[in-house]
Amino acid sequence: MDIITSTSNQGIKNVKTMLAKAKARRQQQAFVVEGPRMVLETPEGFLREVYISQSYIEKSGETVQDFERRFGDKLRVVNDSVMNHMSDTETPQGILAVVTQPAYELSDLMADDKPLLMVLENVQDPGNLGTIFRTAEGAGVNGIIMSADTVDIFNPKTVRSTMGSLYRMPFVISSNLTETIDELQQQGVKFYAAHLAGEKYYDSYDYTGATGFLIGNEGNGLTDAIADKADEYVKIPMGGKLESLNAAMAAGVLMYEANRQRRI
Amino acid sequence: MDIITSTSNQGIKNVKTMLAKAKARRQQQAFVVEGPRMVLETPEGFLREVYISQSYIEKSGETVQDFERRFGDKLRVVNDSVMNHMSDTETPQGILAVVTQPAYELSDLMADDKPLLMVLENVQDPGNLGTIFRTAEGAGVNGIIMSADTVDIFNPKTVRSTMGSLYRMPFVISSNLTETIDELQQQGVKFYAAHLAGEKYYDSYDYTGATGFLIGNEGNGLTDAIADKADEYVKIPMGGKLESLNAAMAAGVLMYEANRQRRI
Repeated sequence: MDIITSTSNQGIKNVKTMLAKAKARRQQQAFVVEGPRMVLETPEGFLREVYISQSYIEKSGETVQDFERRFGDKLRVVNDSVMNHMSDTETPQGILAVVTQPAYELSDLMADDKPLLMVLENVQDPGNLGTIFRTAEGAGVNGIIMSADTVDIFNPKTVRSTMGSLYRMPFVISSNLTETIDELQQQGVKFYAAHLAGEKYYDSYDYTGATGFLIGNEGNGLTDAIADKADEYVKIPMGGKLESLNAAMAAGVLMYEANRQRRI
Repeated sequence: MDIITSTSNQGIKNVKTMLAKAKARRQQQAFVVEGPRMVLETPEGFLREVYISQSYIEKSGETVQDFERRFGDKLRVVNDSVMNHMSDTETPQGILAVVTQPAYELSDLMADDKPLLMVLENVQDPGNLGTIFRTAEGAGVNGIIMSADTVDIFNPKTVRSTMGSLYRMPFVISSNLTETIDELQQQGVKFYAAHLAGEKYYDSYDYTGATGFLIGNEGNGLTDAIADKADEYVKIPMGGKLESLNAAMAAGVLMYEANRQRRI
């Protein structure tokens, strides 16, 4: 098998572009995952190209042929300097893949008759978004709905911080969040917003029915248009002089309270 | 007042060094905070030097004399390019300060007769550490104990993510965490570790007495030596195929469960 030694190789250039630009990811309906774990967790039909460095093969104790058997004609072997050039991380792990974006319908998020949903409006920090996905899987959330102005879920930093939850948590990106919330309310979902106007503590509400939590932007919270859609404003107790929790943390506290209630 | 226009000014060089090096911060028992909010929240006796850029003064609608009245001989005015050079952030806010490190004794963390304490062993991500401080203030934690190998709380990224909690949350750095836990156990604190060996869910324990939570390193969790000190191992429910929550998130879920129980 030929080894790619030039960073001007078309495939290498495309990986770089997809790591850097949400638009390129959208156009190709694909994204890049790094590291053995994320590559191994990728459902087989979703793998498009797998790039492995020479030293990754050496350290694995396997041969190029072993990897060819596993990945077939999707396998590309690159030298270490090309891998370092491609990687989005400071310490490249020697393996990355181009992967088809998973796509869901709103109905996929409603498979459970009492779903637990997260609605994210304009969350901007990639680490926060990834952490919300990861925590949502832990807490048994059924799906995540994001406004179109939320940071791209396929951003490499977000992908990393989901820790694989990206493959297992159904999600949709809504171009009209107000309408999507309307639609879900008609299906019986009650929406709760952590909001400064909340008077009762979050743990005094019953989340065992079909439930959605509304989470806003890190700096500005929810827009009035979305906050107005909430069935209830809930208060997260805030000791000391603190004004708010980090957005992912607020989401996590709410999700695990719903989880607790659903276990009792 | 003279305007500092050279990056080779001794004070400017010292700010850069303190932003970059934990050792310099330790030697000077000081650290750097950025932004109007953090500078304003700094207790007056802790301010050593305040650096303000020319455009910050212009935008403020105040005069140099106004700032001199407020900060006295601690004030240093710098031009914008010096401020950009000094700042640790991509979009400098035009004001930063050198601040004395707060210092506490273990007894300061035990002021409450039923304290809620966090014990962090080798937490390495600056953002996680800052988020734990911020969330701890929100949840009413009385103090945080860190192992000496925990990332420096005065790291600029950590300082930012504490959102001011750094000034309000008592903490100690323990050079012998096992002994510190022993000492606290003798004072009646019960310790709970989120641990894979936990059999009962975290919300089935009573945290209304003197309580400490043990939180380990992001990748490796707690060392056996510290995990062995726990009075109980507790389980955080983990749906899907997830192995663990992010360290700050696990800490937040535990702290807010203690907060919930202490409110009822």
